[in-house]
Amino acid sequence: MNGRLRLGMVGGGEGAFIGAVHRHAAALDHQYELVAGAFSSNADTSRRSGAALGLDPERVYADYAQMARAEAVRGDGIGVVSIVTPNHMHAPVARAFLEAGIHVICDKPVTTNSDDARALRALANEKGLIFAVTHNYSAYPMVRQARAMVQEGQLGDVRVVQVEYAQDWLAEPLEQTGQKQAAWRTDPARAGGGAIGDIGSHAWHLADTIVGQPVESLCAQLNTFVPGRAIDDDVQVMLRYAGGARGMLWASQVAPGHANDLRIRVFGSRGGIEWRQQQPNELLYTPLGEPTRILERNGPGTHPAARRMGRVPAGHTEGYIDAFAALYAEVARHLVGRRDGSDPGEAWFPTIDDGLRGVLFIETVQASSCEGGAWVPLPAH
Amino acid sequence: MNGRLRLGMVGGGEGAFIGAVHRHAAALDHQYELVAGAFSSNADTSRRSGAALGLDPERVYADYAQMARAEAVRGDGIGVVSIVTPNHMHAPVARAFLEAGIHVICDKPVTTNSDDARALRALANEKGLIFAVTHNYSAYPMVRQARAMVQEGQLGDVRVVQVEYAQDWLAEPLEQTGQKQAAWRTDPARAGGGAIGDIGSHAWHLADTIVGQPVESLCAQLNTFVPGRAIDDDVQVMLRYAGGARGMLWASQVAPGHANDLRIRVFGSRGGIEWRQQQPNELLYTPLGEPTRILERNGPGTHPAARRMGRVPAGHTEGYIDAFAALYAEVARHLVGRRDGSDPGEAWFPTIDDGLRGVLFIETVQASSCEGGAWVPLPAH
Amino acid sequence: MNGRLRLGMVGGGEGAFIGAVHRHAAALDHQYELVAGAFSSNADTSRRSGAALGLDPERVYADYAQMARAEAVRGDGIGVVSIVTPNHMHAPVARAFLEAGIHVICDKPVTTNSDDARALRALANEKGLIFAVTHNYSAYPMVRQARAMVQEGQLGDVRVVQVEYAQDWLAEPLEQTGQKQAAWRTDPARAGGGAIGDIGSHAWHLADTIVGQPVESLCAQLNTFVPGRAIDDDVQVMLRYAGGARGMLWASQVAPGHANDLRIRVFGSRGGIEWRQQQPNELLYTPLGEPTRILERNGPGTHPAARRMGRVPAGHTEGYIDAFAALYAEVARHLVGRRDGSDPGEAWFPTIDDGLRGVLFIETVQASSCEGGAWVPLPAH
Amino acid sequence: MNGRLRLGMVGGGEGAFIGAVHRHAAALDHQYELVAGAFSSNADTSRRSGAALGLDPERVYADYAQMARAEAVRGDGIGVVSIVTPNHMHAPVARAFLEAGIHVICDKPVTTNSDDARALRALANEKGLIFAVTHNYSAYPMVRQARAMVQEGQLGDVRVVQVEYAQDWLAEPLEQTGQKQAAWRTDPARAGGGAIGDIGSHAWHLADTIVGQPVESLCAQLNTFVPGRAIDDDVQVMLRYAGGARGMLWASQVAPGHANDLRIRVFGSRGGIEWRQQQPNELLYTPLGEPTRILERNGPGTHPAARRMGRVPAGHTEGYIDAFAALYAEVARHLVGRRDGSDPGEAWFPTIDDGLRGVLFIETVQASSCEGGAWVPLPAH
Repeated sequence: MNGRLRLGMVGGGEGAFIGAVHRHAAALDHQYELVAGAFSSNADTSRRSGAALGLDPERVYADYAQMARAEAVRGDGIGVVSIVTPNHMHAPVARAFLEAGIHVICDKPVTTNSDDARALRALANEKGLIFAVTHNYSAYPMVRQARAMVQEGQLGDVRVVQVEYAQDWLAEPLEQTGQKQAAWRTDPARAGGGAIGDIGSHAWHLADTIVGQPVESLCAQLNTFVPGRAIDDDVQVMLRYAGGARGMLWASQVAPGHANDLRIRVFGSRGGIEWRQQQPNELLYTPLGEPTRILERNGPGTHPAARRMGRVPAGHTEGYIDAFAALYAEVARHLVGRRDGSDPGEAWFPTIDDGLRGVLFIETVQASSCEGGAWVPLPAH
Repeated sequence: MNGRLRLGMVGGGEGAFIGAVHRHAAALDHQYELVAGAFSSNADTSRRSGAALGLDPERVYADYAQMARAEAVRGDGIGVVSIVTPNHMHAPVARAFLEAGIHVICDKPVTTNSDDARALRALANEKGLIFAVTHNYSAYPMVRQARAMVQEGQLGDVRVVQVEYAQDWLAEPLEQTGQKQAAWRTDPARAGGGAIGDIGSHAWHLADTIVGQPVESLCAQLNTFVPGRAIDDDVQVMLRYAGGARGMLWASQVAPGHANDLRIRVFGSRGGIEWRQQQPNELLYTPLGEPTRILERNGPGTHPAARRMGRVPAGHTEGYIDAFAALYAEVARHLVGRRDGSDPGEAWFPTIDDGLRGVLFIETVQASSCEGGAWVPLPAH
Repeated sequence: MNGRLRLGMVGGGEGAFIGAVHRHAAALDHQYELVAGAFSSNADTSRRSGAALGLDPERVYADYAQMARAEAVRGDGIGVVSIVTPNHMHAPVARAFLEAGIHVICDKPVTTNSDDARALRALANEKGLIFAVTHNYSAYPMVRQARAMVQEGQLGDVRVVQVEYAQDWLAEPLEQTGQKQAAWRTDPARAGGGAIGDIGSHAWHLADTIVGQPVESLCAQLNTFVPGRAIDDDVQVMLRYAGGARGMLWASQVAPGHANDLRIRVFGSRGGIEWRQQQPNELLYTPLGEPTRILERNGPGTHPAARRMGRVPAGHTEGYIDAFAALYAEVARHLVGRRDGSDPGEAWFPTIDDGLRGVLFIETVQASSCEGGAWVPLPAH
Repeated sequence: MNGRLRLGMVGGGEGAFIGAVHRHAAALDHQYELVAGAFSSNADTSRRSGAALGLDPERVYADYAQMARAEAVRGDGIGVVSIVTPNHMHAPVARAFLEAGIHVICDKPVTTNSDDARALRALANEKGLIFAVTHNYSAYPMVRQARAMVQEGQLGDVRVVQVEYAQDWLAEPLEQTGQKQAAWRTDPARAGGGAIGDIGSHAWHLADTIVGQPVESLCAQLNTFVPGRAIDDDVQVMLRYAGGARGMLWASQVAPGHANDLRIRVFGSRGGIEWRQQQPNELLYTPLGEPTRILERNGPGTHPAARRMGRVPAGHTEGYIDAFAALYAEVARHLVGRRDGSDPGEAWFPTIDDGLRGVLFIETVQASSCEGGAWVPLPAH
């Protein structure tokens, strides 16, 4: 590799959760170097955050637009930016960097409405820039294993999809205590959706990654259980897939006993699989009429597509940051390919196209729920 | 107890599954003695079955109606009959025994339509007879534990119910091989419903037992995945409960890796619980904001209502037959109470009222699915 | 079958644990009928216990010797007796019934010293009577599966055996509260051994059942952790098997979090297996270099030797009483064979020979521990 | 922090496993910067490895001694070196860097004999340098949780310790295929011990970390099951702790179904705990007489000593690299403290003292096994 990729970040200042995760992910494989950031729109906060990260103060900004312009003209300017702000800011920030000719890695949901997502897609295409969206659960090795197994027909025709994402951190009105994460994530203006946007969209994308056929229509009920909350904290959806599969999706932030419990099961005519984020190094696989197998990451019977995403041998667990870093590594293979003319190989990551489809999914769920749980077709993107 | 309860059986001849289970269940606690039966409408089969069970040949019948009449007039005639035929025969058989003044224990779904169930309820009430329905999963000790916890408010207001019953034995067209169980259970005329009737109704009743509030309306999709099958083999339902809870129910017979996997999770404003039939001696309980507890049958923290249903100490597992027998024991407490004037105490079991509600649930799911998955109210029973 | 086997019982009066288990086990498959008993040496207790069981008062005894004599001369006398007294009474009771020509089913450890066990073996052989010992864990279907797999070479040469039996009910001095079970089980005179006798011998026998090669020598430490206790409540043993395998055995009654946690793992040159009593319907099986399989009782890949021991299909759990009953059923096949001249087929159960070897194991552990944990050979039986 | 810690590495060239882990661990929290290395004694290999890591070629060495001298005199020389060679090289390499005044982070076992370890300890003390040993399992958050619980008396007096470390990668003679890891790890000259050195010492240290009382004596059998192997591939040990606890330790590289399965259970007079490396984010905790709790990393009821070691919220799993990085972070707090005069707070990591005690443990196990499994006291260090 001819040196590390020069990375900038927008958002992720003091006290932020996901910004720190992106930095760990970028650091783990020695492929990125964080060199610039607009960590907060508050200049002092941004400066302190940048200093704590050891950045050159000159490259710590309060204004993302200024950052985009300034970095674009530096000889050692950033080649890619990570956007980790609250959701409503993703679109303007991404636009600024795309217009400055800088590749984008953006958190999900990529925008708070599909028009913005479509516009970003058009802009990225026009500029010929990479636009990755951190649907990070698609990068777990055993999720890639599941994806490969479906693609290669090991499950036969997919019949049933059961996906869920249960959390419990919002079972009480945490947002009323001033907790920063809870505050913006339960604010319709900044989040664009509650449980459906924050975690329901992850569940949808996980299923999408593995199943490989689009949702055709759905019926949904968005629920708000915590008194005084302005946004959904639980969502239940029934799904009809284009290829004939039927699915159920449940996402909840009010499920005591589930900290971050994303799970999926997919059943086909030839077998079934099950994966759980809280035990991510295993994939249960049952060939029809045979005993269930416990496939372990990097263990016997695992697919090259899964092996590529891990670092340590079977039995040495990997977790959330490892998978997030594996996604960054997939993006790096493409970025380096662009820079050096090298072949990224099989590297694959969610793009603005996935991002747009995710926003359409959120909007369709919201539309169905508004109509009392009617069946609503999912628009073509 | 002044001697054992004299039990008859209709159905359950050679090769039947559930008839043998009922006999094990009746035998385990020494409370019933099987003394008569019409094990098959084929006289030879019935005779052979009765002989294998050591019955007096005089009390082995081919015709259930004749059995009802004959036993009713014997001095040592049966006091209670177990009906374990295919579903479509439940109603006529039950009617015959009720009219003969004999208490009934009947398999579920209690009838193939709600009119029949209403008529049976009226008849049982008129005759003052016990009519138990073997929704056997309601008799597991840790299900009773869950029920008691909800009743006593340990979960607070119930918000979310997730219940599922997954099997895999019909993932291929087993009924085309002549397998007897598969044949009648996939025949609409004899079964009255596929996955929804056979196991979906169990899932509904399990939730009903624990949650204690009725379903108000639902939307459902019945699916038939195996080519050539005449009945649903998978069903997905969204539920709205009268008390404000929202639920999802999934039942499938085409889910490789799930042999008989009935599970339920209930989440309330103060905590959550989880139970799984394949590991029935445990109940996971998470008080809001505290670590999850593993409650073990007869272990620390278990409720008297749960302790009553078990036989052996914590760690000594109980299973399917134990719980079935616990249901028979609950019925026995009432039957003995009637006979001897004793107090059955807290004994509780599903009755024809549960049976009727179960049939209404099945019919409503079928109606919703016919209307393309529309929301349909559940009729009052 | 020409009628049920007529069964008597010695011990198992009011408040006893294991006596009730034997009665459930005998009842479950309709093969035995309990017709006589000496449930307690206290005449009133025995009478009340017999009455509660609905026995003919004439056949309820206080004196086991009188019972043996009386039943031996009745035309409808018992053919087999279950002995469920405290351990020190097993030998005299068994002797009385053997001398009366009555088959014996006896709880374990079969005696409190090996001389008594040898004498019983000689007497049973001389009389040509069946002497079954209820090492009940050998009758779980998936233990039989494991046994068959080792016998058929699926694990290759056995290398390592890890067996343990952890409980927590004696972590405090329960015997000082007057609890009946705790009192006799911690009394050296009545129990003959603490953790090693009560549960260590079960662990040894489970390994013996599966591994099929004898222990050649061992080194052990018996521990007494609860102040004031007169007997061991924890035992740790290293084992050398005759065939070259090496093992570890741990049994404890002071392990909080383990109610009745018997587990075994066996590793050979071609694969490994794992079984756990608290989840007895599964056997984990790992062929060398392949993913682990979850074998389910009656599920795909199970052996006829395992299938014979169960009653309900895969996924319908079986437990402690089911397996105990399966042991009784194995014995019944032999008893009926004797009575009717029929072939018991593959039926297998632990006998006085296993019982004797179990007592020798206990004595050898005690000897090693007395010598400070020296290696001591296990005497040939 | 005034800039990152400048790190060098000895060993860890192309194809090495643990060297890459150390580099990931050093990178994750942005506290170290790898600037120099002697990755192999083969100059070409070292050069290629350094180039792949983007190092200045001038600071890539073939000779560790030359590296120590050269870096010691550079103004921007390394402050700390990570030693990740095969075991027999740890001592000479560590000596060279200590003598050059450079802090050391060294893999375990720290040396192949206790004399070397004692000499290193003396040298480090004399020089006033930090000597960390990467007993990495001591850095998992839930291991720190367990340690804190024992220290604060939540388990009462420790009675029983059950620790095991099972792997299966050497169940066949992998070393005969030329696999590099297998080759040196089964070579007595380079490894110093087989299963006992490679993983048994980890198991010992894990127990030591949690239990906090030294082993007083032990009896052991070292086993070699794979034909043609020159070193132990399985070890079984019984332990007597100074505080009265009794323990068992098993480590195996021939246990099919166990990829990297380090587990520990500790039982005291007031409760018990269980931790498993393959599911490291949970700690099972049973207060005596209460239901078992599932403590989750960063979840309710976790100790500050555990929370300090993690990065992401409960439910977002952490794994092997995360914990390795947490150990590096603990060392960094001390290194920065030395450099900047800051307070490292509660930061704790295994040192040469743990390293020496680990080597003494290995030697004592080997001595006991040589004497046929005799009890041997563990020398004071």
